[in-house]
Order: sequence, then C-alpha cells, then structure tokens
Amino acid sequence: MKIFVVYAHHEPRSFGHAMLRRGVETLEAGGHEVVVSDLHAMDFDPIANADDFTQRRFPDALQYDREQKFAHAQGAFVADIQAEIDKLLWCDFLLLQFPLWWFSVPAILKGWIDRVFVNGVVYGSGRRFDTGGMKGRKAMLVTTTACLPGMVEPDGLLGSFDAILWHLNHGTLGYAGFQVLPPFAAWSIHYTTPGQRAAYLDAYADRLRQIETIEPMFVHPLADFGDDWRLKPGVAVRSPMLRRPDADTPDATQRTETP
Amino acid sequence: MKIFVVYAHHEPRSFGHAMLRRGVETLEAGGHEVVVSDLHAMDFDPIANADDFTQRRFPDALQYDREQKFAHAQGAFVADIQAEIDKLLWCDFLLLQFPLWWFSVPAILKGWIDRVFVNGVVYGSGRRFDTGGMKGRKAMLVTTTACLPGMVEPDGLLGSFDAILWHLNHGTLGYAGFQVLPPFAAWSIHYTTPGQRAAYLDAYADRLRQIETIEPMFVHPLADFGDDWRLKPGVAVRSPMLRRPDADTPDATQRTETP
Repeated sequence: MKIFVVYAHHEPRSFGHAMLRRGVETLEAGGHEVVVSDLHAMDFDPIANADDFTQRRFPDALQYDREQKFAHAQGAFVADIQAEIDKLLWCDFLLLQFPLWWFSVPAILKGWIDRVFVNGVVYGSGRRFDTGGMKGRKAMLVTTTACLPGMVEPDGLLGSFDAILWHLNHGTLGYAGFQVLPPFAAWSIHYTTPGQRAAYLDAYADRLRQIETIEPMFVHPLADFGDDWRLKPGVAVRSPMLRRPDADTPDATQRTETP
Repeated sequence: MKIFVVYAHHEPRSFGHAMLRRGVETLEAGGHEVVVSDLHAMDFDPIANADDFTQRRFPDALQYDREQKFAHAQGAFVADIQAEIDKLLWCDFLLLQFPLWWFSVPAILKGWIDRVFVNGVVYGSGRRFDTGGMKGRKAMLVTTTACLPGMVEPDGLLGSFDAILWHLNHGTLGYAGFQVLPPFAAWSIHYTTPGQRAAYLDAYADRLRQIETIEPMFVHPLADFGDDWRLKPGVAVRSPMLRRPDADTPDATQRTETP
C-alpha cells in the first residue's frame, strides 16, 4: 500500500520518534511505500487564514470552508496546503501519530487537519462517511500518552477510549470517508522501563504488519439515517457512541438552545 | 464575576464576532468584569516548543509537560504564555468561543490550551477534576457550527453533543477542575436567515444572563474511583459518557494493545 504518515512531535529524541522510525522501517520491510510529513521538522503552519488562498471567491469576509471549495476548483491553494492534499490523495492508508494532549492532537496536527482536510476534496456537497471523499482508503490513530489503560475503560476516570477519540475517529477520519482501524496506544510512557518501551515498539511493529487484515471500526452508512439525521426505526445500534435516546443513561447537554 | 473570554475566529465580519460583541456587552451590562483574548487579533502562536521556556530543567530532550512544571516554579515562561496564565488565574469564569471545526476547536485555540493549561498550575501532582487547579471556577463552551441539531442527538449521524465535546468538556475543562456549564451552540449558521441569526444572539444573551444559576454538568469526584481508576462497585453512573463495561453496547477499541 501507499502509506502517508503524518507525525506531530516536538522532540527527535522522544519515544514518539522511536515509534516513527520503527513504524517506517516495519512498513517498508512489508513492501509498502511510505511518505512522512514530520510537521515540526517542516515548521508546518497550523493557522487557517486568508493567506491560504491565492484567489478568493468572497473577498469581503473570509468563509474558510467555502474558499476551500473554490480554491480546489481553481487550483488556488498555497503551496504547503496543496503539497499535503497531493500526499493525501496519493495514499491508500493515512496514519496520524501524535502524543495525546488534552484528549486530542497537538495544535500543529489539528491545524494540518483544519487546512488539509478541505471542502471539495475530503467532504462537501453531501459527501461524508460512506460517501466521503476518502472513501476506499483506510486510516489509523497512533498515540503515546501518560495515562493508564484503566483510566480509559468505559467506567474509567477519563471515559472510554472510544469517547475520548470520537472527535477524531468518527468526526474527522470517519466523516472524511476513511475506514478507521482501532487506535494503537503506548500507555504511560513517562513511567515505563526501557524493557516496557521495547515491548511497545515490538507491539507496534506487530500491529503494523496486520493493517491489511484488521477489521475497521463500524460506522453506520448514511442510508441508516432518516431525513431528520437520526437512526431510522428498526436499525440496530452498532456504533460505540450512538444510542437510542430512550436508553436509561444521563444526557447532560439536552438543554442546548435551538431557537 | 471576573470573566475571561478566549475567542478564536479568523474573520471580524463573522457571525461569531457578532456573538462575541453581544456577549461582552451583555456580561458587562450584568455587572461582570470581562477580559477577552482574541487569538487571531493577537497573532497567538499555537505551537508548543522549546522556545516557550527561558530556563530548562532537562535541556537535552524536550519533555514539554515537565518543563511546564519547572517553568511555573521558576517563573520561566515566555511572556505570551505567562500573560494568558495570569488571566486564567484572575478569572472566575472561562468562556471559550470558537467555530466547531472537525468536532473540535480550531488549531489556534487548541494551541492556547496546549501552552496555557500548564502542568503545575492547571493540573499535576494528582490534581484533576474535583482536585484540579481550576477548582472553584466555572467554564463554558460557546460554538457556531454548520451542522443541524438532529445530527447531534444520541442517535444522530454525528453522535451526541456530549460525545462530540467530551474531549473538551471532560478531558480539558473538567480535568482542569472547572465546573462546566452545558455548551451553547448556534446551529447551521451558513444556512440561517438574518431573523434566525438575531434570535441566536438573543438566546445567547439570555444564556449569559443565567450563568450564575445554571447547574453545571455532573462529573464524578475522584473518590468515586478505585485504585484501578474505575468506578467503585455500587457507585451509580451519572456522567453521560461513562458506563459499566457489562452494558450491552458495542465497544470498538477493546483491542488496544497493552503489553
């Protein structure tokens, strides 16, 4: 496969960087072609703004997503964005590797998503999930974290790993149309021994040798939802975060205003 | 109250900016003191790196969170970070306002969190949730989005708003110790009429007039969790994303490696 690794870590002497090297080596040994965007090494600019376009459809006020769609049609992205879009369209498999900061990606990687997952290519005009622009490709999150596995059990202090990563696995990669593999995490790296870190590298290499056969996480196709954007009656809930609203569980944000 | 508004929008002629103006006006009319960090106007740097510290404890390899702790003890943050920490410690109420991009905050605001929610002040040494550094303060997310309310129902296309915002409400604000109010959202702004936008501004002003009395979302105290970081037997699940692992629901990421 053609594999695009987007890597966000500030320190070349980190365990994260050791995982990057082991990952690339393992994938290349498996016959894959690998391209890496090392965002810190590239000094990647994460801020979405008016400078991202060489032409504008609505020059008076910046509507970022609408300008993305126009820029794609006109070939009017600045070079750093277009280069990343080209790698995204080249790949069969997208791997995002990052330290988990505040339950999410560091800003430099969020900015890569904001600027590169563009309207008109990745999504838009009704394309999302099983009709998303990245349909037919796979993706996976790979992360290092100071937290412990028990904390991310469904009844753990932080909530399930599915809940923590929902905005990325479902809201970003899934929305874009990727088939998303279960994430790979190296836990509590601050507090591990060299032997445990070596075991993580081996486990990571094992995982990468299986990426062509591992079952992606389930995402309901658009056809499972009605005109009200809710699961049609009779469709069994198979996605980890979805539930029928009559389920006997708390729901804190029902009071969100909808004038 | 002392209210700190952190605002992330790239366009001063946006509906988001109209919400900011209406919000500040409403809060000041209610007798509150308001300080705004307009991140785009400030040209805020969102990238966490070695330049953030004027002294280093571990100069050989950057361990960002450990350097934060040291920098707080030594007064060794660069000026832009220290200024934001000072505002955070001044406020009684933190309001984060942003357009919802990929189920989350834009990179400029993620970088504000990465660099300003520092170890040693906001969390660390066992302080989190009900023992977090921001204990006794309140916070709220305010967002504008192109999506429709039905999409974020518990059985909606995108999953519940609780699930989408879990990494922010629980993983960031809750973890830091804030009591978190339900989020305020203005839906589908791209497609609304001027009358609907005026109604959103009115609803937002109404919400802001109630922030001293609205019930925060429930977060289990640390005492509800055992030594394994999981809810103790007999504790009733009250947090919207937590559940007992024997619940009859799918769980996609159970296969995450733990060597």
